[in-house]
Amino acid sequence: MAYKYSYKTRDHKFILNEWLPVDEILAFDKFKDYYSKEDFDTIIDQVHKIAAEVIAPTAEEGDEVGVRYENGQAYIPPSFHGVYRFLQENGWGTSNVDWSADGIMPTILNGLLIEIQSAANPAFMPYVGSGSGVAQVIQLYGNEEQKKRFLPKLFDGTWSGTMCLTEPSAGSDVGDLLSKAYPTDQPGIYKLKGQKIFITCGDRDDVENIIHLYLARVEGAAPGTKGLSLFIMPKYWVNEDGTLEDNDVQCAGVEHKLGLKGSATAQLVVGENDRCRGWLLGNPPDENGIGEGIKQMFHMMNEARLDTGRLSTAVAANAYWNAVAYGRERVQGRPMTNPKEGRVTINKHEDVKRMYLMNKATTEACRALLAKGYYYEDIRHWSPDPERRKWAQSMLDMITPLCKAYPSDEAWILTAESLQSYGGYGYCEDYPAASATRDCKIWSIWEGTNYIQSMDLIGRKWRQNKGQDFARLLKEIADFIAEYKGKLEGLDQEMAHLEKALNSYYELQKTVLGYVTSGKAGLMGVYARRILTATAQLYCGYLLMDQARIALKRMAELGKDHYDYNFYLGKVISARWYLNNAVPNVWFITELIKIGDMSVIDAPDEIFDY
Amino acid sequence: MAYKYSYKTRDHKFILNEWLPVDEILAFDKFKDYYSKEDFDTIIDQVHKIAAEVIAPTAEEGDEVGVRYENGQAYIPPSFHGVYRFLQENGWGTSNVDWSADGIMPTILNGLLIEIQSAANPAFMPYVGSGSGVAQVIQLYGNEEQKKRFLPKLFDGTWSGTMCLTEPSAGSDVGDLLSKAYPTDQPGIYKLKGQKIFITCGDRDDVENIIHLYLARVEGAAPGTKGLSLFIMPKYWVNEDGTLEDNDVQCAGVEHKLGLKGSATAQLVVGENDRCRGWLLGNPPDENGIGEGIKQMFHMMNEARLDTGRLSTAVAANAYWNAVAYGRERVQGRPMTNPKEGRVTINKHEDVKRMYLMNKATTEACRALLAKGYYYEDIRHWSPDPERRKWAQSMLDMITPLCKAYPSDEAWILTAESLQSYGGYGYCEDYPAASATRDCKIWSIWEGTNYIQSMDLIGRKWRQNKGQDFARLLKEIADFIAEYKGKLEGLDQEMAHLEKALNSYYELQKTVLGYVTSGKAGLMGVYARRILTATAQLYCGYLLMDQARIALKRMAELGKDHYDYNFYLGKVISARWYLNNAVPNVWFITELIKIGDMSVIDAPDEIFDY
Repeated sequence: MAYKYSYKTRDHKFILNEWLPVDEILAFDKFKDYYSKEDFDTIIDQVHKIAAEVIAPTAEEGDEVGVRYENGQAYIPPSFHGVYRFLQENGWGTSNVDWSADGIMPTILNGLLIEIQSAANPAFMPYVGSGSGVAQVIQLYGNEEQKKRFLPKLFDGTWSGTMCLTEPSAGSDVGDLLSKAYPTDQPGIYKLKGQKIFITCGDRDDVENIIHLYLARVEGAAPGTKGLSLFIMPKYWVNEDGTLEDNDVQCAGVEHKLGLKGSATAQLVVGENDRCRGWLLGNPPDENGIGEGIKQMFHMMNEARLDTGRLSTAVAANAYWNAVAYGRERVQGRPMTNPKEGRVTINKHEDVKRMYLMNKATTEACRALLAKGYYYEDIRHWSPDPERRKWAQSMLDMITPLCKAYPSDEAWILTAESLQSYGGYGYCEDYPAASATRDCKIWSIWEGTNYIQSMDLIGRKWRQNKGQDFARLLKEIADFIAEYKGKLEGLDQEMAHLEKALNSYYELQKTVLGYVTSGKAGLMGVYARRILTATAQLYCGYLLMDQARIALKRMAELGKDHYDYNFYLGKVISARWYLNNAVPNVWFITELIKIGDMSVIDAPDEIFDY
Repeated sequence: MAYKYSYKTRDHKFILNEWLPVDEILAFDKFKDYYSKEDFDTIIDQVHKIAAEVIAPTAEEGDEVGVRYENGQAYIPPSFHGVYRFLQENGWGTSNVDWSADGIMPTILNGLLIEIQSAANPAFMPYVGSGSGVAQVIQLYGNEEQKKRFLPKLFDGTWSGTMCLTEPSAGSDVGDLLSKAYPTDQPGIYKLKGQKIFITCGDRDDVENIIHLYLARVEGAAPGTKGLSLFIMPKYWVNEDGTLEDNDVQCAGVEHKLGLKGSATAQLVVGENDRCRGWLLGNPPDENGIGEGIKQMFHMMNEARLDTGRLSTAVAANAYWNAVAYGRERVQGRPMTNPKEGRVTINKHEDVKRMYLMNKATTEACRALLAKGYYYEDIRHWSPDPERRKWAQSMLDMITPLCKAYPSDEAWILTAESLQSYGGYGYCEDYPAASATRDCKIWSIWEGTNYIQSMDLIGRKWRQNKGQDFARLLKEIADFIAEYKGKLEGLDQEMAHLEKALNSYYELQKTVLGYVTSGKAGLMGVYARRILTATAQLYCGYLLMDQARIALKRMAELGKDHYDYNFYLGKVISARWYLNNAVPNVWFITELIKIGDMSVIDAPDEIFDY
């Protein structure tokens, strides 16, 4: 009972079959002989069944048993071993990211499938995903020798991988990391030395080897992020004949965390005995000491940012559906507007319905946002048209900080509302609400804190390509309004709110830029996180309206008695809720920013003594 | 390290010595020979020392060991025994609420002291407070025999007490509880039968006896809350000679909770062997079956509502001060506006300062709100002037729902921001941030969920005394604006925001009443929680401006070099932050309410299948 999987998939099918122009993707050479739209529902059902029957039953053990650390080894929850193996052997594991293989799934499909799986056990999923990320980076940046040595066993799951950035003294400012790399006599092989912390799946007892991607500075390279290089650093060194030997990568402990207890968050001590070696990825630092590491790592990092938003959405949506299931059974109270009706189940109460609808609309908004990301990923990667690839890459750049930060900020609020709807039972770990709040909190922090995402949005993405890329995103919204204003029945007020939000967003940008040029640049930092939220709400408002547009059409076609009518009605009601309750925040934030409150800037540190 | 006590008390001293007109209270007969303003600082320092040195060291054990349940008995964390005894023996325990005693502390002082103690171990405090609540109810409503039998040992802490309302099928709708009481041959003695859950401190191994106040329906009494009666139900029956014997009150288990793990949340099975007896408090149900129980229980409940807000404030404020201490040591990143300065401690970053100031201002707002509550408590109880007592009671009525719900809603956001400021370490239980988020979540639920508080505000408090009581609260704000507008240096914009918020609040009320009369009463439920938040923000905005008014004066008197200058400066900056960032929410909520979004009302349950 403490963990419960109540995931639904109708919205995923809608996204694939009815909303996004997936036909374009399926026509790419890579996919056209392998996938057609007709397959989607079956694949989704199959994955949902695996999630419910294979993955979800391990979640409770993961939370209760957690990760054990003993004598330099992390032991993951025993039940996780079998699930990992099952997914790898049945085609749902790392092999899904083998771009060279035939029949690889488009990201627009796989991204949604991973969400469905993630909700079944969020602490487990990185055990699969981290290997995928490493394999992708080696595929992209590795030489033939490296690909040959590492990819096959990464793709079949015999080995897994990790991303090693953070160090005890360098988290958000990765450029200050202290890990060092020293050339050896062998070309491309370096000795590595350093410490890493917060390494997700950084140690585990269910795979033969762990292939770490290790960020370090080659001796003498430039300071800051630009001087960094990336190394393939296996836990066990892989000889040419495939035999393994110890590589002086020690697990020094695992973190005792608020949630995600089944996930091993490891501390690594590297090269303490001066025997750790790694393969350099790409070229050594150039004559100015500039390495290629940060660019290479950012490939994985950007994927991880979408994954973070996806995990947040998955946990929040599952908590919401669990709450709904509970609320349909739990009798308590009488209807406010008609108490004489007698006691009712709590799902009849206005405030409980508000919690559900807030959850429904916001998780659908997050899912739509992420799905746009998956869509752009496929196009930037596989489109035969270079212009289109470039376009998709720039659109993906624009929304990546939103994809990471917005769902992870919202998850804290949404899971708390789901918990609240249970009353006192929500606070008891025997019910499935509490663990969702614990699990989701890290996602506003890892893979670049949500403040870093906000500054990425304002400081980089707003300006990228002289501001044209971001302007194009806003123009997409403006075009939508121009095309459909007055044409979506019953949604005139909502469309007006979208338009008002868009117009105020232009003002918001202007106000912020005004602060920068008038010596109040600090206000950018003060309002950054709220600006990101407003940006996501504007963009998601547009996405939900676009979905409602299709839903309205389908409702008219199907009629009220059709079994699927309520799904479409729900899409319209989601849009109504979101446009009337979340999107107004865009002009509210604009108003706050215009106030330009200097209190944070003016506050000397001494006042926080009180 | 997992638990850390960093509490400060300067704001408490300010409230007592400089802000609230405490002289009126100290002049009451009850206090005039025992307390003077000069004593406050010393008493606060003494209690802070006890909190830091005696209470706080038990918090970590409480969280880690939790409550053990074995063979019908709950065992609280061993270290709690000594603290309980220490407080009781040194005058900081239940005896503080003995109204009949000489030298009892005014609530305005005691309320603030309990906050200082609560922050040291929020799971522990109810072990003291629950006995106090029971003693007060018996003092108010018990007969001489009952007082004689129970009060002395409640006051000296030999026995403790609980409030038994919730049942498995009756939480928010207490009127539907199933517990029954049957008259016996002995007058005033009833047989009791039923089940209770979520009983805070409902069983424990550190006291000789537990005096439960048990809410039940006398056989044949009216249905609903009005038919309920309240019974003194000891765990061990107290004979006339003081000997104890088993009273058939069994602890059937304790909850496994998200937080507050050291606090025993018990399930009780009462009269299973038909041997449980209780003393009726007050009169039996009258000829219409109307009992006195709910009124009696509400005395304790209203105290508990203030206590809930106080616990929330204490945990959030302690988390904030812990975060500040961490942020002054932790080096990470470079200043956004001047990166060349090199690496700095994180407390220099705009977003981190924003988190601190948001926490500082909001916890100060909550403390001010609660302090008004304590102030009204003293006056309604001890003022010689019946009109003044009545006035204080009505003011207390108005703000009680705010005192309960606003701090407990904010605590979830505030503690998460404190956690966020640590980066990844915030998610690790070895640091003191994570446990604060776990501890605080129940407070938006217990003692009447925050939705119940909201409906109490709108449905009852707005209307009480034909609306005159609430109008008086608003008039207090209007009078403040009229008196000080244009007169508080540097706070003109902030005063303008307070005025705008007040004006929009009148509109908000009108809009909501319009919904009620136009058949859209359901919208009251939909917006209820947001209305409560807006109400609290308006009221707290006024309180912080009033505090800033005094701070400005003190700053002018003392000059910048005075050691206390920064405290007053902090009060002004708190007000600035709150009026420029929180108070605008009042007119934003008003705008949302005017939109009058019907999506929640229109949503059929079926859409939540998706």
